[in-house]
Amino acid sequence: MISVAIIGLGNVGTHLYHAFKSNSDIHVIHLNSRNLKDTSNVDIAIIAVSDDAITEVSKHLKAPLVVHTSGSASMDELQNIGSKGVLYPLQTFTKDKIVDFTNIPICLEAENGDDLMLLEKLASCVSKQVFHINSEQRKSIHVSAVFVNNFVNHMYTMAHTICNDHNVPFEILHPLIKETADKIKSISPIEAQTGPAKRNDAKTIKKHLDLLNQHQQEIYTKLTESIQSYGKKL
Amino acid sequence: MISVAIIGLGNVGTHLYHAFKSNSDIHVIHLNSRNLKDTSNVDIAIIAVSDDAITEVSKHLKAPLVVHTSGSASMDELQNIGSKGVLYPLQTFTKDKIVDFTNIPICLEAENGDDLMLLEKLASCVSKQVFHINSEQRKSIHVSAVFVNNFVNHMYTMAHTICNDHNVPFEILHPLIKETADKIKSISPIEAQTGPAKRNDAKTIKKHLDLLNQHQQEIYTKLTESIQSYGKKL
Repeated sequence: MISVAIIGLGNVGTHLYHAFKSNSDIHVIHLNSRNLKDTSNVDIAIIAVSDDAITEVSKHLKAPLVVHTSGSASMDELQNIGSKGVLYPLQTFTKDKIVDFTNIPICLEAENGDDLMLLEKLASCVSKQVFHINSEQRKSIHVSAVFVNNFVNHMYTMAHTICNDHNVPFEILHPLIKETADKIKSISPIEAQTGPAKRNDAKTIKKHLDLLNQHQQEIYTKLTESIQSYGKKL
Repeated sequence: MISVAIIGLGNVGTHLYHAFKSNSDIHVIHLNSRNLKDTSNVDIAIIAVSDDAITEVSKHLKAPLVVHTSGSASMDELQNIGSKGVLYPLQTFTKDKIVDFTNIPICLEAENGDDLMLLEKLASCVSKQVFHINSEQRKSIHVSAVFVNNFVNHMYTMAHTICNDHNVPFEILHPLIKETADKIKSISPIEAQTGPAKRNDAKTIKKHLDLLNQHQQEIYTKLTESIQSYGKKL
């Protein structure tokens, strides 16, 4: 039995709490960072608060091992007295959408081997994908996640606007969105690249720009140039 | 029984041919555009060649109804003597990857009601998602598809490069990529937007920029500003 305290009532804290709670090998309590209780009797305290608050919250925690869940904060931002580590679940969480942790990669880091083993035991209770990732690697994963999640979602938003402006149901794009995401499981994204930018099809690019407003044109042009510059590098 | 000739041996032509061939209500032949036979005895000739060649190929076709499969070419580019139309399957095709047409949206356009009904009968044999889409709407779908397919795939490529440069397996991002694509089926992409740009989290944005090369920084900054400008419009 591993005993865990999760600090923070946001998305990550709430989803982790529910994942751990449903596992009989873990005893878990959920705490509000503004009303901290004594955590000296748990094995691991997990800080799931905004990056700016990690250091301050960590100072009050007396658990033998304290970890944070941030992709971009380094392990050193923890200032607890005991051992330090990181447990970073690599997924986008929405408050009301239930998430199955089984296939969520969990990136672990710790100061020493025993702590890493304990974290691995904990993470393996809920996920099949557990990785040892150092702070430098984790930061590169975090910025990569911005590209494949935040920026990709923004592309969906821009397409949604274009569809709305031309009385087309956005749902017509759902199968293409799914296939685009599926495709890179079997071939690398550089091989999967298609379209007028990749083909240097100036006629189609011109047609597309004619349909767009100024802001959309700027993004279209910037990304078209970026695809073409990648093509030249190969 | 509908008899069909498909002209063009590229991805779209090949995938359409195989989809039609497996259906007992359709008789289909597959022709090379450089070696055209008489098509006057088929019901529909489907031109699946590059946009630039549509007009030239159409001049040689004597089928009563000739359609092209392009998202960006207008119906008027057809110069056959008989009726004209469009049958545009909205999907990304790869030569060696088998595609199930059942859930691929097929966008239809025709000059008159009878032809539209015939195209609908044909398309419904292979797909559950058949739409009547005029040339203007189809062009907006085509440019939207560039955003959700070509540009999204380019975001995957950029993340792939960042991962490679930091010795992180790109596969660690697969579950996030899948969840990002799934999420917009239940909530709109503007609601699904998260991340440092959306939160105006200047500290994290600075950390990310420090990890990137100049080209990556330019794209990151442009898309961050774009997300922020969308936020202000709401």
